[in-house]
Amino acid sequence: MEFTELNTQMIARLEAIVGRSFLFLDNETRNDYGHDETEDYVFPPAVVLKPGTPEEISSILKFASENHIPVTPIGGRTGLSGGALSIHGGIGLSMDRFNNIIHIDENNLQVITEPGVITHNLREAVAEKGLFYPPDPSSLGSCFIGGNVAENAGGARALKYGVTKDYVLNLEVVLPTGEIIWTGANTLKNSTGYNLTQLMVGSEGTLCIVTKIVMKLLPANTHNVLMLVPFYDEAEACEAVAKIFNAGITPSALEFMERDAIDWTLKFVDGVNLDIKPEIKAHLLIEVDGNFPDVLFAEAEKIATVVEQFRIDEILFADSEEQKNALWKLRRAVGEAVKSNSVYKEEDTVVPRYELPTLLKGIKAIGKKYGFSSVCYGHAGDGNLHVNIVKGDMTDEAWKSEVPKGIREIFELTVSLKGTLSGEHGIGYVQKNYMDIAFGPAQLRLMKAIKEAFDPSGIMNPGKVLPDWVNG
Amino acid sequence: MEFTELNTQMIARLEAIVGRSFLFLDNETRNDYGHDETEDYVFPPAVVLKPGTPEEISSILKFASENHIPVTPIGGRTGLSGGALSIHGGIGLSMDRFNNIIHIDENNLQVITEPGVITHNLREAVAEKGLFYPPDPSSLGSCFIGGNVAENAGGARALKYGVTKDYVLNLEVVLPTGEIIWTGANTLKNSTGYNLTQLMVGSEGTLCIVTKIVMKLLPANTHNVLMLVPFYDEAEACEAVAKIFNAGITPSALEFMERDAIDWTLKFVDGVNLDIKPEIKAHLLIEVDGNFPDVLFAEAEKIATVVEQFRIDEILFADSEEQKNALWKLRRAVGEAVKSNSVYKEEDTVVPRYELPTLLKGIKAIGKKYGFSSVCYGHAGDGNLHVNIVKGDMTDEAWKSEVPKGIREIFELTVSLKGTLSGEHGIGYVQKNYMDIAFGPAQLRLMKAIKEAFDPSGIMNPGKVLPDWVNG
Repeated sequence: MEFTELNTQMIARLEAIVGRSFLFLDNETRNDYGHDETEDYVFPPAVVLKPGTPEEISSILKFASENHIPVTPIGGRTGLSGGALSIHGGIGLSMDRFNNIIHIDENNLQVITEPGVITHNLREAVAEKGLFYPPDPSSLGSCFIGGNVAENAGGARALKYGVTKDYVLNLEVVLPTGEIIWTGANTLKNSTGYNLTQLMVGSEGTLCIVTKIVMKLLPANTHNVLMLVPFYDEAEACEAVAKIFNAGITPSALEFMERDAIDWTLKFVDGVNLDIKPEIKAHLLIEVDGNFPDVLFAEAEKIATVVEQFRIDEILFADSEEQKNALWKLRRAVGEAVKSNSVYKEEDTVVPRYELPTLLKGIKAIGKKYGFSSVCYGHAGDGNLHVNIVKGDMTDEAWKSEVPKGIREIFELTVSLKGTLSGEHGIGYVQKNYMDIAFGPAQLRLMKAIKEAFDPSGIMNPGKVLPDWVNG
Repeated sequence: MEFTELNTQMIARLEAIVGRSFLFLDNETRNDYGHDETEDYVFPPAVVLKPGTPEEISSILKFASENHIPVTPIGGRTGLSGGALSIHGGIGLSMDRFNNIIHIDENNLQVITEPGVITHNLREAVAEKGLFYPPDPSSLGSCFIGGNVAENAGGARALKYGVTKDYVLNLEVVLPTGEIIWTGANTLKNSTGYNLTQLMVGSEGTLCIVTKIVMKLLPANTHNVLMLVPFYDEAEACEAVAKIFNAGITPSALEFMERDAIDWTLKFVDGVNLDIKPEIKAHLLIEVDGNFPDVLFAEAEKIATVVEQFRIDEILFADSEEQKNALWKLRRAVGEAVKSNSVYKEEDTVVPRYELPTLLKGIKAIGKKYGFSSVCYGHAGDGNLHVNIVKGDMTDEAWKSEVPKGIREIFELTVSLKGTLSGEHGIGYVQKNYMDIAFGPAQLRLMKAIKEAFDPSGIMNPGKVLPDWVNG
């Protein structure tokens, strides 16, 4: 697709919309807003804009639509699929200034927020009112809630509490036409026309710009129990996952970490110490939460009974807030730790959780076939396994030629197990050309038609989600 | 929109697809499949087809698309918005033969089912395996799970467990082109392209025919406590609803019934006796569920403390399974009881739950203004209030001229309270011309474009959901 290059006149027009202080042409800013956390990609936009109101965004999109200028929405730049990369240059639309929590509605257990609020800050603000916003992606300290909506982010609590989509009730969005609309209503249930709200969630900035988000909240829980279970066999750790649910327990977190993941992370983070026997191959980090400590202890005991059927070492029960925080710090840092260690590619495979052992074994076998190693970890409770393929001492040539074949085989395995390409990171730039594994021509045609219905000029985050041969 | 009338040749072609025993031209069958539970409407299709496989449906839809013949999908015919009415004649596509539960997957807590399974039967079948499918529309004894998907049905447990959409993971659907596709994957989380699955849920048979449904399940709860609270003031009963949640309790059911609703229902159902003081104006039926009886008793006590802040009579705690069943029988029969009493129109208003008292007072005032009375009841815990407008001794003329004005005002009030037209019944035939109250031209244009992307010949359940001036 051909786009118009921004000229001086156009820049002047954009400056008139957002004001001189919120338009950036310098290389430093452009580079800064030209990357997220996806591998080592940098695609700077020609101009970075930081609008402050939906009306300014409306003017920008209208202008961009009329002049065929690509617009890439940019949030906290923590994405792992390259959704925020301005791969066609044009306008990088930063949502930095949409950073207000508009209203915490304690009467209805809802929050209305702007999309540029950091997820952690949103969770803390509602927690102060005794409320709970469950989704907690590992990047929660720096990601934007709007980015969470764009990617349908998950996190460690999704197995019990669901993902971002399960909390979004209504969205104010700006369409590429410049129209500002609400997609639904602020209600817990809604059977009124097609579900435009859920169509926006996970659409990765390719259909519209979200400017306000209405989310449901839960009453906060008062207690939790956290346990770390060391397994002598990584496939057995995966097997234990489904068994815990089968025992009638729904943990609030159930995280899987391969041995390498823990070892690298222990070296990477400060102040967390664990004494792990050399024979331990994987860990499960398991949390139950609720309001009644006795119930949680009973549940934790039941979980212990389940995991003791496998070859495990002694279970560590976190006995203080400090220890809980240390274990979570460890878990959340795995991604960064693995990445700091080598050039890498991260895949976000997801399967029905009983298929996890098969998936893990398959990934290792595919790695062996193509000559790469991988570090696996993730949200095992919902079948979501992050696969970090590390370059290590692979040659550049093998890295370029063999790894994509291996990734394709991993995704084919995932889909054959009734799973799919991405559980929570999105497709974005780096996975788009694998979409044919998950979908046939009919689904891709429908997705393209939806894209065209919302964005007839094709300016919204072009070159993302749909494969190149579909996007044209 | 102009459609082709079926001729003898076409009928022969359809007979070749489904077989002689599954094509019906007789008046009795056509009338039987020409109505649901919406007022007294009957719109018989020209022919009733009962296909047995997705492939047969594929052939039917391809034929209908090519020949411009309307196709109305027909489930359990319990709908309340007229979605199953063949208002343009043509093919009435009964899903009666898709009545198999394909697989209850205990390892992944999922079920794969055909859409023609009765919701109650599905719930019982999974319960036998210790699993729980929460959505329980009042018509659960006769509605189809496929109809629940089409309307995004709710029920009494939605406030804690969500609605149908929260359980649908993946759908096999037949497109009007004849293509048979899966919309997603059998996973608990999914960030892989636009959410076609959620776009199908609640689309009321206007985009495709669902032929297989993959749903998530929960481990079954072992215990519940049910209490009936009589209020001296109906608005106070509504006020109490939000207060219960604010106390940190999420009940598994929280149902509101006006005095008239209970009185009429007590006359209508057998074997349920309640001694209610004349001054009582409304009841809340409140349930908590879980696995630990002590916790439930503590929660029930906390609820009692909350409701005792209002003017209430003695709380009835159901002390046996029989009494619980009797109270639920009473609640589920309200709709039928009210309808058996008079000509009626039912609206399915939904608002954020704290707005319920304002909504209820507004509905009564609007009724007074236009000269109609209403019986209100419903799922107060999620802000979903069913409004039964009863004709009583209103003249036919006033019924025809005044009631639509009143309904429009009720919906305007609902939307002004950040609510919407339908919480769980769908828009279908009878509410479509109120859609402009909830949505502006942009949203309606997008919905129309989505419709055209899926159904370019406009044969799928024509004349539903979108207003006549949008549908053309």
